[in-house]
Amino acid sequence: MKLLLKNAGILAFKDGRFDPIPEGFLGIDGDTIDYIGANRPQAPYDREKDMRGKLLIPGIVNCHCHAAMTLLRGIGSDLPLDRWLFEAVFPVEDRLKPEDIMAGNALAMLEMLASGVTAFSDMYFEPRTLIEQNEQAGMKVNLTRVVQAFDPDEPPEKNFRIAESLALFDEFHGCQNGRVRVDFGVHAEYTTNDAVTRRYADLIRPYREKGARVQLHLSETRKEHEECVQRHGLTPAAWFERMGIFDLPAAAAHCVWCTHDDLDILKAHDVCPIHNPTSNLKLGSGFAPVPEMLEKGLRVALGTDGAASNNNLNMFEEMHIAAIGMNGYLMDPVLMPPSAILRMATVNGAHLQGRDDTGCLTVGKKADIAAVDMDRPHLYPAFQPMPMLVYSAQASDVVMTMVDGKILYENGEYLTIEREKVMFDAKQAVKRLYGGR
Amino acid sequence: MKLLLKNAGILAFKDGRFDPIPEGFLGIDGDTIDYIGANRPQAPYDREKDMRGKLLIPGIVNCHCHAAMTLLRGIGSDLPLDRWLFEAVFPVEDRLKPEDIMAGNALAMLEMLASGVTAFSDMYFEPRTLIEQNEQAGMKVNLTRVVQAFDPDEPPEKNFRIAESLALFDEFHGCQNGRVRVDFGVHAEYTTNDAVTRRYADLIRPYREKGARVQLHLSETRKEHEECVQRHGLTPAAWFERMGIFDLPAAAAHCVWCTHDDLDILKAHDVCPIHNPTSNLKLGSGFAPVPEMLEKGLRVALGTDGAASNNNLNMFEEMHIAAIGMNGYLMDPVLMPPSAILRMATVNGAHLQGRDDTGCLTVGKKADIAAVDMDRPHLYPAFQPMPMLVYSAQASDVVMTMVDGKILYENGEYLTIEREKVMFDAKQAVKRLYGGR
Repeated sequence: MKLLLKNAGILAFKDGRFDPIPEGFLGIDGDTIDYIGANRPQAPYDREKDMRGKLLIPGIVNCHCHAAMTLLRGIGSDLPLDRWLFEAVFPVEDRLKPEDIMAGNALAMLEMLASGVTAFSDMYFEPRTLIEQNEQAGMKVNLTRVVQAFDPDEPPEKNFRIAESLALFDEFHGCQNGRVRVDFGVHAEYTTNDAVTRRYADLIRPYREKGARVQLHLSETRKEHEECVQRHGLTPAAWFERMGIFDLPAAAAHCVWCTHDDLDILKAHDVCPIHNPTSNLKLGSGFAPVPEMLEKGLRVALGTDGAASNNNLNMFEEMHIAAIGMNGYLMDPVLMPPSAILRMATVNGAHLQGRDDTGCLTVGKKADIAAVDMDRPHLYPAFQPMPMLVYSAQASDVVMTMVDGKILYENGEYLTIEREKVMFDAKQAVKRLYGGR
Repeated sequence: MKLLLKNAGILAFKDGRFDPIPEGFLGIDGDTIDYIGANRPQAPYDREKDMRGKLLIPGIVNCHCHAAMTLLRGIGSDLPLDRWLFEAVFPVEDRLKPEDIMAGNALAMLEMLASGVTAFSDMYFEPRTLIEQNEQAGMKVNLTRVVQAFDPDEPPEKNFRIAESLALFDEFHGCQNGRVRVDFGVHAEYTTNDAVTRRYADLIRPYREKGARVQLHLSETRKEHEECVQRHGLTPAAWFERMGIFDLPAAAAHCVWCTHDDLDILKAHDVCPIHNPTSNLKLGSGFAPVPEMLEKGLRVALGTDGAASNNNLNMFEEMHIAAIGMNGYLMDPVLMPPSAILRMATVNGAHLQGRDDTGCLTVGKKADIAAVDMDRPHLYPAFQPMPMLVYSAQASDVVMTMVDGKILYENGEYLTIEREKVMFDAKQAVKRLYGGR
């Protein structure tokens, strides 16, 4: 099936940069973009869809998410960080069953699809649930069974998570026509030990050739960063490097407290930092050194983190706060250009996920596309699409989300997910988890 | 006419604090709230409106705005502050005619009404245009003809703005059944001189008994703050105090660089600071010391500033960024409780405007109300309404906005403004101002 999106603004990408077309045509052949231009293509299309007044943008990539934590949205918002985790979050997580996680995952997918997210990276319990659900939902998901070892003396041979992590990759990596990618994962330095981590690194190293990648948390809080230095005489980044984890390309969430040397380590190993500004600010963790990362050529991506510390999965808010937060913190109004922010949320995110066949609107790339309705009072006038998207637009301005050429969301309707059932299931899960509320 | 809003969540306000009712009834008699409770009132109502699944909140007050600058949305986003003002903003403002300002005002009202704003304070050219437009629109507006004197030697008797400012008050203050309030105004310390300001203070002092108030910009940027100290040996706050301007209650926009002593001055004179986090961060001005202001008992309000430096008029974004920005900057996750943020956007804003008859949902207050649709994936679960509103909600979740008991906006429709005409007029104005674009 060949589909032509016509009369739309197009945030095209050409020669390594955004190259907007005020009004034009975007052709799709199956799952792939086969035409972009201001003029109507010569070739015939089976179907045409009038997108007048809309701006087509690359599907947004949420690179750090704990999707099922939507069910923990806003809990313990009035507690300091440690008490929030131990008194609010962990007791609920202890009660989570696979059906709860599925309910939370589906709620997250509703929210992300409605806001233009086509792909996300997830790190949570029971990743098989999400694979199963995504069969129908049709998004692109990178997920992982992270390795943890809470006992510093736990030997690798007793760590069942290592085997589960490898098995998950072997069974599912690349399934659903490549829409599911399995990453390897280490939760964080402070939740594992040397022996387990070294052994895991040795086991996953051969998977590099299969395109395997790693997810982890890195230097999110000052406490975590400094305790690692006390424990190992190494920063978390240096420690992961020594363990051999960075022998695979990795996605490092947060990096708030990374030092200058840490950033050089990340650069040397093609580790992509994921900036999660809302979560980092809300939890009082601080500001990641994004301008320095960009200066060093690191391909920074963006994420929402889980809804428990955000408290939503709104990548338009992340773009906005990534832009103005850093400007304000370093007192420089032109520090974070809108094009750099958009690149983080799209091209860089796709690269971090190992999906360089998507992330931008270019002929030959997969048709992962969101459409923004420009006929909104708060978007007029919009002299340039990039500042409009980063500073003025809201998630709710998205009116269509398409993955691999297939529309998954349009004008409030979900085409692959039953909204009412998801909301019902979420309510049942909340009853199970919290009692009468 | 008596109207009963039924089956709604209600963010009521009782004994000086928010007191949410999960599901209840809110009765309105004419323009005034006459009942709030979990149970159906005994008294009869002429009309009932089912608000199941909605949360009623106080109308939001945008305390610092240059409404017509919607027509300058996003211009010069890539320029540093001085060049942004001199190369992008000022040349367009030079070309503004009253019909352009009306077009921009109307566009701003569309955006604000759709996001639950019932009242705003405006500081811009040609304030009579906004008074005229608001006759039909029906919002609550505090506006001002600010005094400026760019020549340091300009004598007061030559400053035509002083007379205009006084005349505006005499002619319009309290009109439209009190919905229009005229404030006095001094643009900023750096745009006036001692003689003009002293004379203006002397002239407006007698208006204190008539409930007059003052709008001004205060210590927005470090440069402005430090140059004032060099010029006068006084901070802007101390200088305004010495000039006598603070003899009236005042609303001071920004206050980013206010010192500890400055905040004591504001406190001593019932000057309310207006926090504009998006604009301050985007322009690289820095973080206002909001926690210290609150600790000193200052009644901080919130504002968007103009769309040229924001680039929208979204008070939900302001609430969100006010909350998490300060948490992140001072690295304390419980620094800015959601209830304090909501108070800034409602109760404190109403107080700052001289509208203590509104700003909260309490029997006897004016029925200035917004309804938030809770049936949205990103708002579920919502265990507590306050964190939900501040961290999860978006402006687009507002489905009804009511001023003085009259619905002005509901489910995408404007009841007092012709949306299509406003969009058309805005496009005409943009053509006039920018040529072919």
